[in-house]
Amino acid sequence: MEKRVLNFSAGPACLPLEVLKEAQQEYISYGGSGMNVMEMSHRGKVFDGIMKETEQDLRELMDIPDDYDVMFLQGGASLQFFMVPLNLMTKYKKAHFLHTGIWAKRAIVEAGKYAEANVVASSEDKTFSYIPKVDADVFTKNADYVHIVSNNTIFGTKFKGVLDTNGLPLVSDMSSCILSEKIDVRDYSLIFAGAQKNIGPAGVTMVIVKKELVESAPDDLPAMLSYKTHVEKDSMFNTPPTYSIYMAGKVFKWLKKQGGIEAMEKKNAEKAAVLYDLLDSSDMFKPLAAVEDRSLMNVTFSTGDAEKDKAFIEQATKNDMLFLKGHRLSGGMRASIYNAMPKKGVEKLVSFMKDFENKN
Amino acid sequence: MEKRVLNFSAGPACLPLEVLKEAQQEYISYGGSGMNVMEMSHRGKVFDGIMKETEQDLRELMDIPDDYDVMFLQGGASLQFFMVPLNLMTKYKKAHFLHTGIWAKRAIVEAGKYAEANVVASSEDKTFSYIPKVDADVFTKNADYVHIVSNNTIFGTKFKGVLDTNGLPLVSDMSSCILSEKIDVRDYSLIFAGAQKNIGPAGVTMVIVKKELVESAPDDLPAMLSYKTHVEKDSMFNTPPTYSIYMAGKVFKWLKKQGGIEAMEKKNAEKAAVLYDLLDSSDMFKPLAAVEDRSLMNVTFSTGDAEKDKAFIEQATKNDMLFLKGHRLSGGMRASIYNAMPKKGVEKLVSFMKDFENKN
Repeated sequence: MEKRVLNFSAGPACLPLEVLKEAQQEYISYGGSGMNVMEMSHRGKVFDGIMKETEQDLRELMDIPDDYDVMFLQGGASLQFFMVPLNLMTKYKKAHFLHTGIWAKRAIVEAGKYAEANVVASSEDKTFSYIPKVDADVFTKNADYVHIVSNNTIFGTKFKGVLDTNGLPLVSDMSSCILSEKIDVRDYSLIFAGAQKNIGPAGVTMVIVKKELVESAPDDLPAMLSYKTHVEKDSMFNTPPTYSIYMAGKVFKWLKKQGGIEAMEKKNAEKAAVLYDLLDSSDMFKPLAAVEDRSLMNVTFSTGDAEKDKAFIEQATKNDMLFLKGHRLSGGMRASIYNAMPKKGVEKLVSFMKDFENKN
Repeated sequence: MEKRVLNFSAGPACLPLEVLKEAQQEYISYGGSGMNVMEMSHRGKVFDGIMKETEQDLRELMDIPDDYDVMFLQGGASLQFFMVPLNLMTKYKKAHFLHTGIWAKRAIVEAGKYAEANVVASSEDKTFSYIPKVDADVFTKNADYVHIVSNNTIFGTKFKGVLDTNGLPLVSDMSSCILSEKIDVRDYSLIFAGAQKNIGPAGVTMVIVKKELVESAPDDLPAMLSYKTHVEKDSMFNTPPTYSIYMAGKVFKWLKKQGGIEAMEKKNAEKAAVLYDLLDSSDMFKPLAAVEDRSLMNVTFSTGDAEKDKAFIEQATKNDMLFLKGHRLSGGMRASIYNAMPKKGVEKLVSFMKDFENKN
């Protein structure tokens, strides 16, 4: 048995061991092809099959309707921060933003370079520890869309339910929560997500978008920044990140085997409850996010004492529980418990926390 | 022994078996870390070490001077077709292009969306089977740079020697020849190359650029399209394609073990000679590229008879020699024989060709 650690990284993050073992086994010769998937021409039959199945599995898992396109792109969510405005700000050259953290901020900055980024509400006053509640009428009609970050990786908050956008198209960055719980894709006009948190290796970004928005995008955009290009070429305008797509595909198959998204949501809620229950009862460890906005994927907490936090992180690391340090803006600790983190991993962390509390 | 084929794909292409086996062995736990490299936080110590070593090894292999920055980006050469103009067309908003094939064309089209792309010469008249020879004075001084494609993957041609650009900065797309032969980086102001041909998995693109060009780039570019962003953040502005970088790093170490670029150049010349010698003596197989412009990496040829070409490709495939079909524009066959293709692979192909010629 090779060493494995408990990896609480916010991303890139842990993958299911089962998936890794399977990929390891076919590393020298995938399916009898005599090649690793990363060595294959993306125009060949074998990779073409992988690509089509991967999209099909994602469509099944998320129940993506036929009037939505699915793309597998490069550049991460960060490139989407510019591509979304470029493709979607067609009429008003303006969009509304909810400012809920650093990733929302980056999207606001990039959109602002292209057109008008209107911030309707912000939770910056309390270090983004909550999701601002807004009435639909803040979303004035003179805008092309509303942008939100569904789950805020750094601060451990998430949107619950569906935002009323006053009829405007809703765009969501789901990088850190995609496939973690049931959503209705029809509630969104565009969803994007980097794979490196809840899916697989860094280097591939999924974009799910209503076909009508792709069709109404401008025709003269730089090819690589145009959704039209990538949709027309089935994400093969240029060489796609083949190995990352293959690994994402393997994770999709694993998710199906786990029972799909509804089953994952149940497991994720149970896992998060183990940790939040401790945080709600502990005298030492306190949750950082507002109760009503708690993320299922990223759990932020602190002892309130920077020295004690540091000691905790050090001792956890020594015990092979890694990457628990919180982001410098929120301080304290963060346990990222994506789909691939098993419940017993969270239980081990909680038991370690109890132990630490007793001893300190 | 697992099955392995002879993979003549133009990219993604074959990797050294040694490298694959090493990566396979550390797939579940890299260097005792208890994680696959793709599971690690890119901000952690282990990946930071990989990133630094990978850059250092590339600098050593190519003898990259200190006044050049090295970036590991996403989006392939195709995104560079737009990023180069955006960052480098600072004074004249114009660049000169040599049109030597499809990848040159794409660069011309993308640059033209941003400013003026001036085509000084083209080999389109003969299906790009040669490199146009131009006098330095075609490169008028009212341009920000000259753009070339050093090796034309599709047509099997390459620039030999160094282009006299009349003093203008030289930009080269080296996607299909980087690290295949000795060049002096100082002859270029910017070099870019997707990794998926001569280095490793798709999804990472190397950009090597004179620092002064990064410094003089505009400040208000979209973050992900700005060299300044990526240089300032050591290619970690957002999550980099960590696994692709790790594999590229392994290939760099393998190249060093082979004796570095000079040793590879010698091997590559020998390998290509095996194939060109046959093409020059065969009555059936004819080379498609002009003798003086022949690529060492992509060897294009044809029987002159589409049916016979088809039969050859089919029989080669049956004999586990894959991806020999030429691009539809040039027709015929193409054998891509990058660094990772051993000489005995080329010899096997040549012996198969001789056999085919005798029988048909």
